[in-house]
Amino acid sequence: MRRRNLAVVLGAVAGGELFSRADVAGLTGLTRAAVSSLVDELIGRGALTEVETAPSGRVGRPGRALALSDRGPAGLGLEIGVSHLAACVADLRGEPRLWRRVERANAGRPAGQVLAELAELGAEAEAAAAGLGLRVEGRVLAVPGVVPKAAQGLVEHAPNLGWHAVRPAEHWPRPQQAPVPENEANLGALAEYWQAEQGAETIVHVSAGAGIGAALIVDGQLFRGAGGFAGELGHIPVHPDGVPCPCGSRGCLEQYAGEAAVLREAGLTAGGDPVVLLAERARAADPAALRALERAGRALGLALASAVNLVDPDGLVLGGAYAELAEWLLPAVRAELAARVTVRPWRPDTLRSSALGRRGALLGAALLTVRRIITDPTRLPLA
Amino acid sequence: MRRRNLAVVLGAVAGGELFSRADVAGLTGLTRAAVSSLVDELIGRGALTEVETAPSGRVGRPGRALALSDRGPAGLGLEIGVSHLAACVADLRGEPRLWRRVERANAGRPAGQVLAELAELGAEAEAAAAGLGLRVEGRVLAVPGVVPKAAQGLVEHAPNLGWHAVRPAEHWPRPQQAPVPENEANLGALAEYWQAEQGAETIVHVSAGAGIGAALIVDGQLFRGAGGFAGELGHIPVHPDGVPCPCGSRGCLEQYAGEAAVLREAGLTAGGDPVVLLAERARAADPAALRALERAGRALGLALASAVNLVDPDGLVLGGAYAELAEWLLPAVRAELAARVTVRPWRPDTLRSSALGRRGALLGAALLTVRRIITDPTRLPLA
Repeated sequence: MRRRNLAVVLGAVAGGELFSRADVAGLTGLTRAAVSSLVDELIGRGALTEVETAPSGRVGRPGRALALSDRGPAGLGLEIGVSHLAACVADLRGEPRLWRRVERANAGRPAGQVLAELAELGAEAEAAAAGLGLRVEGRVLAVPGVVPKAAQGLVEHAPNLGWHAVRPAEHWPRPQQAPVPENEANLGALAEYWQAEQGAETIVHVSAGAGIGAALIVDGQLFRGAGGFAGELGHIPVHPDGVPCPCGSRGCLEQYAGEAAVLREAGLTAGGDPVVLLAERARAADPAALRALERAGRALGLALASAVNLVDPDGLVLGGAYAELAEWLLPAVRAELAARVTVRPWRPDTLRSSALGRRGALLGAALLTVRRIITDPTRLPLA
Repeated sequence: MRRRNLAVVLGAVAGGELFSRADVAGLTGLTRAAVSSLVDELIGRGALTEVETAPSGRVGRPGRALALSDRGPAGLGLEIGVSHLAACVADLRGEPRLWRRVERANAGRPAGQVLAELAELGAEAEAAAAGLGLRVEGRVLAVPGVVPKAAQGLVEHAPNLGWHAVRPAEHWPRPQQAPVPENEANLGALAEYWQAEQGAETIVHVSAGAGIGAALIVDGQLFRGAGGFAGELGHIPVHPDGVPCPCGSRGCLEQYAGEAAVLREAGLTAGGDPVVLLAERARAADPAALRALERAGRALGLALASAVNLVDPDGLVLGGAYAELAEWLLPAVRAELAARVTVRPWRPDTLRSSALGRRGALLGAALLTVRRIITDPTRLPLA
């Protein structure tokens, strides 16, 4: 019961303005004495601070308001991409406080070597966070691969890295500090859900890196499917008799809207940042780049029309690299949705691009720890 | 608390064998005194009966076991199809006890007229049920149309009937006894979930009548989507540049696997029962019928490949008319799924056809009341 009440108080402070203890009592229905005891414990655990507020006009003396701590508990997000490693530390307010990124060609390298380098980057980020007064309480790793629901800590398959059955903890210098892996598309969707201004509760979020991943949020929770494989949008057949796909099928979305396909169609070869390169060409009105992005947008629109017809989301979000190319993708996506979602009401503003762009998955990895603390503050050690 | 415990006891009896009061106490962790009081109330409300069991070898004298009542409370399901009206009464055990069906050309007829005839059929079914000692406690109407989540009692749109914004209660002789409308595909999926032997918890159920409807069960609950429009499989684009669809799009599943499309492809004209006609022709190895069903199966397989990639169900069920044609549809559906679900494990036995066939939706309508009583027995009046 106390655990639940700690979460209720912390959640009230997390959800809003600067509240006094009395405000929290009013909001939660708990007695002022109970709130004070709970607040003291939350301050002791480092989750809350009490700050002086400016004198209010009415009374003329400064008040004291509760706020989530910007020092103390924090979440570390880590990320392995095909061509980079990255880290992010977020404080309890959900603010990212530092970002680290190094370029590395990770595809096909031994997983142990990649993870050892990532551990170094993570340790460096934790040290820098300590300099800001932040203490990492949990570590989550965003991977472009399948993380089965039943087997915690296992990356079953990450085709673009060449990984099969990798357990990060087996390669981490201190296994008890190893990050818990999670699919990057899922983390991107969660970050979007937690950070967005919009109140959508059923969200289809599609992002692209080397592959295409979608994630579903249902009533505010990640929907993983029966086995943890939900959201595999990249291999939805958009043109059943179309381009062969290395997966063995034909006409998969990835063959039209995946990074490699778009670069090929735009007549570009990889080198540098492909998303930046595409955006530059499109901005310069390069016909091949515009055509490639329009084709990708059409294919995305077809796949999303299937998703909308099936799942009926109130939020449909282009995230990851798609968000950074949204200017050129959205018109075609919109046109397909308008043409294909016909037998039920369709609100065009359901579709939007994420403000987080390619930082979404890594931020989500850092925020996952923060959100777990907010919903269960007893995860934090007592001072 | 007592309400919850009544449901716990009733659920225990509903879930299993013939239990004694002592068995129920052991199963639920409630005291024997509490169980006896709860059982007495459930008997008083007509939900349970106590029956003599055969003497057990060990003790040699007959015992008394609890069972769901096969008299007393019951659910009435009603159905409006394009060419029929139907009713079904199910008892608390979930057993359908009577079926009524009349052929009627309902498409385009005034809704008030259709509903008046249905009310007569329903009254006749209730009278017949009374003759079996059954008392209808709730009425649910299966309709081939959109029933929005936000507006209880409203059929927003039923294109194959020509209905727009119809409220059955406004046309029912005794409005307080009017049935609550629900989408027929949803009811078919629920009936399948409640009656199936298999333990799947995340189910995509696709059924066909005049249109095609799918429904999603997630963790045992109907998933309706943000606005109640989830499961619109019939307008998933399976061949984006394909056959124009009256909905305004092109290449929708309905143009390949809908009833009208299959009949046309098979060279048949409507008249009699189209499903029976197709099955007869297919059984006689008529090439056009076999070709039409194979084409429908391919298209269904494509749409279901999208559903599997997105939702990752552990049960994928062909219901309604598809179940009665499964023999000819399943090979093509299986082949498409095997070819298209490639980047994650796919268990072919996830796909099956429903044993309920076209009775599924109507049975689901009758069972909805029964399930509501089992989860809240205080819906029943005290004797």
